[in-house]
Amino acid sequence: MKELFNYKISLSYDGTSFSGWQKQGNTKNTIQEKLENILTEMSGEYVEIHGAGRTDAGVHAEEQVASFKLGKFEKPDCIKDYLNRYLPVKICVTAAETVSDDFHARLSAKGKTYVYRVWNSKTRNVFEYPYLYQYDDCKLDCRKMQEAADLLCGECDLASFCVPSQLKGYDKKGRSTVRRIDGINVERIGDEIRMTFEGSGFLYNTVRIMAGTLIEIGAGKRSAESIPETVAKRDRASAGFKAPACGLILKAVKY
Amino acid sequence: MKELFNYKISLSYDGTSFSGWQKQGNTKNTIQEKLENILTEMSGEYVEIHGAGRTDAGVHAEEQVASFKLGKFEKPDCIKDYLNRYLPVKICVTAAETVSDDFHARLSAKGKTYVYRVWNSKTRNVFEYPYLYQYDDCKLDCRKMQEAADLLCGECDLASFCVPSQLKGYDKKGRSTVRRIDGINVERIGDEIRMTFEGSGFLYNTVRIMAGTLIEIGAGKRSAESIPETVAKRDRASAGFKAPACGLILKAVKY
Repeated sequence: MKELFNYKISLSYDGTSFSGWQKQGNTKNTIQEKLENILTEMSGEYVEIHGAGRTDAGVHAEEQVASFKLGKFEKPDCIKDYLNRYLPVKICVTAAETVSDDFHARLSAKGKTYVYRVWNSKTRNVFEYPYLYQYDDCKLDCRKMQEAADLLCGECDLASFCVPSQLKGYDKKGRSTVRRIDGINVERIGDEIRMTFEGSGFLYNTVRIMAGTLIEIGAGKRSAESIPETVAKRDRASAGFKAPACGLILKAVKY
Repeated sequence: MKELFNYKISLSYDGTSFSGWQKQGNTKNTIQEKLENILTEMSGEYVEIHGAGRTDAGVHAEEQVASFKLGKFEKPDCIKDYLNRYLPVKICVTAAETVSDDFHARLSAKGKTYVYRVWNSKTRNVFEYPYLYQYDDCKLDCRKMQEAADLLCGECDLASFCVPSQLKGYDKKGRSTVRRIDGINVERIGDEIRMTFEGSGFLYNTVRIMAGTLIEIGAGKRSAESIPETVAKRDRASAGFKAPACGLILKAVKY
């Protein structure tokens, strides 16, 4: 069997104008597609790339990780430079290295950190608004949000916090909805509320639904104490709204 | 004489796509113009607005201050909301208040703070690149830049650091080129070099020329010790390059 060289790259992107990470059906303008097209062009062979997190349309990444195999060895730095030469200005490869055969960006990932940024002011942030969700109905109570967030940590059935499926206890792909949340930190930095989510893995839309639920708690629309009941119901309808994509950033992937 | 009501507003803008603050000749798309048009529309009378700093094309403002007079009283908050409703998304009024008759945003200003941001890495910053000047020839020596910066503080003849005029010791508008620089701070924040300039006033292009000169010093192209000589020559040619507009931000105005 032909020897293959396995590569790991890190990249950051402003997801505003992309249709998300994953290539699917007729969806054009995905980040996966941009990378695959350039790598295929570079190597002369079809290259398939796997991302650690399949970020949705409009979601950003400070550090996304991806892996792919090539039939011919190329220096990691040359791959990085080649990609950066042809990628849109809103995507940048920050590191490239060769890795052992069994490394897979998604399957090998041990944990992920996501950040959700809320701009809690009536005054627009002209510099960063594409990376913020502006919520200006009232001043959010950061302490209450942290109280609620703490109740979500540890082993948690995320059934209420993901796109619902027919079968309770399983997500739409048939996987168990139980996950371990390592920590959620809520802090106020001036007019910004920054929520940092760390966990072994999140289900589809989970971080955005958690962020939305915490925002409703911060706004006094639901209580922090309601969290255990929301979790126990295992029903999407019992959690809060799905916060917009623009405020979400994949911050880091742990291996 | 008709009573006039005097207003002071603070605003922030991403200057990337504007032709600078000041309306002049055939220049379209200035920030002054955008504001005047909306205020004129709102009040039904021609309104002239004065900015504290006449930022160049492409220069940003975290806090620009402007003043204008109206013949009819309007609540400051209503003016702020009205402006924000019609201004482009890249300009935002953050505060509005009434002030005494003799207040003039530019003439009353006691000092200004500018920040110049350099992205000192080959890796593009996909989120903030419109507000950074990317310099990746080499790692800049921040300590040397600070050493040089300190030599520019205090009473300083800025003749070498402004657009030259025919008459030495005077800028192109015939004003003395001597100014007091209160402080220049150079710090490294990860891959960013951030220079903060505080002073009673700066001449045309002075901050950008100082930033360019400090960058050349950080890159080892000139020595920190050469600063007194550069100043003494009172010759634009003796200073460094004019750093690009995109890295410059008017941070605050002091009254």
